[in-house]
Amino acid sequence: MAGQAPTAPADVYAEVQHFYARQMRYLDSGEAETWAGTFTADGSFKPPSLPEPVRGRPALTEGARQAAAGLAAEGQTHRHWVGMLTVTPADDGSLTAESQVSIIAVAQGGPARLHLVCTCRDVLVREAGELLVRDRVVTRDDRP
Amino acid sequence: MAGQAPTAPADVYAEVQHFYARQMRYLDSGEAETWAGTFTADGSFKPPSLPEPVRGRPALTEGARQAAAGLAAEGQTHRHWVGMLTVTPADDGSLTAESQVSIIAVAQGGPARLHLVCTCRDVLVREAGELLVRDRVVTRDDRP
Amino acid sequence: MAGQAPTAPADVYAEVQHFYARQMRYLDSGEAETWAGTFTADGSFKPPSLPEPVRGRPALTEGARQAAAGLAAEGQTHRHWVGMLTVTPADDGSLTAESQVSIIAVAQGGPARLHLVCTCRDVLVREAGELLVRDRVVTRDDRP
Repeated sequence: MAGQAPTAPADVYAEVQHFYARQMRYLDSGEAETWAGTFTADGSFKPPSLPEPVRGRPALTEGARQAAAGLAAEGQTHRHWVGMLTVTPADDGSLTAESQVSIIAVAQGGPARLHLVCTCRDVLVREAGELLVRDRVVTRDDRP
Repeated sequence: MAGQAPTAPADVYAEVQHFYARQMRYLDSGEAETWAGTFTADGSFKPPSLPEPVRGRPALTEGARQAAAGLAAEGQTHRHWVGMLTVTPADDGSLTAESQVSIIAVAQGGPARLHLVCTCRDVLVREAGELLVRDRVVTRDDRP
Repeated sequence: MAGQAPTAPADVYAEVQHFYARQMRYLDSGEAETWAGTFTADGSFKPPSLPEPVRGRPALTEGARQAAAGLAAEGQTHRHWVGMLTVTPADDGSLTAESQVSIIAVAQGGPARLHLVCTCRDVLVREAGELLVRDRVVTRDDRP
């Protein structure tokens, strides 16, 4: 399409796909602090469930811990699937990554069930060679 | 496997993944004319719901508009997910892209629900540097 | 993250994505022998439903044939979706590929339904230029 922003080259695209696979694996396996470490020190995450963003690794860790504890208490596992990903480089060297995220919930004894579908818009930056999320905004299709 | 057609190199594969992410985003957000512009001027789309293919951008635009209006009237959002993608270059410079497409339906107030799974076979061609669909055939597993 | 294993470069990642798209297509379309040929001659597959791994192409073929016959008798199609894939090269030249695999079941007449979500850990090796599975371990979130 005319006027489309150029997308990231294949090596960056593969790196971002790996980044999300690992980041969601940390989240879904309850590795809260490691997950929070995939954000910048002052990283911001605006989930659809909160009026204000969660900022900084300590607050991100705490949020992930509470979510993991809640799921464990219910005997549930969540699996975050990232798909339909576009990665667009910005002039300042950051990357805008836009995707759909499906959350599949699995209860002990089954069945698996599609829980939610979200739209995720991330600004990714590179620090010491590693990609990190500086800003994440997640929205839901089932809410206005 | 012996005798397998060679698949597209990483840069083309990443480009096709980006292509689908954008194309389905246009469709799901009701940008009917922009979506139709991801087909060639005489592009053909054979959906499982019609006996004959839809041909050309005006007809494609109209079809996407009607689909979007129908979903809006029902208070629903569709999200098309492309996965399990193979891209195979043909001798004439076109690409054959085969994938599974899941459609997730989300009603206002929820829940999200897996609506359909289709098989999509596209012939992609490059015009003025951009990939476009010249021919799309979509089939459904739940129909003979 | 500090201490993370380096991931495969883009060309290998694209090749592995193609590998899974084809391998699962063989399985889901009942091409049992072709599917078994995507494992090494002594390849091992530990599914969650069996106490011991299935070893070798004849046994793998037989297992895939039985699964396909069972689905055909029920009038069902399965579609295996691989996602959230990481590919990590090991020192011996093999690749460790870790992913989530969702199985979507579609009955004639519909609807489509999310059947299972598994975690798949493969060791892939290259023989005569082709990737093959030497060892596969699949686990399920809904079982201890």
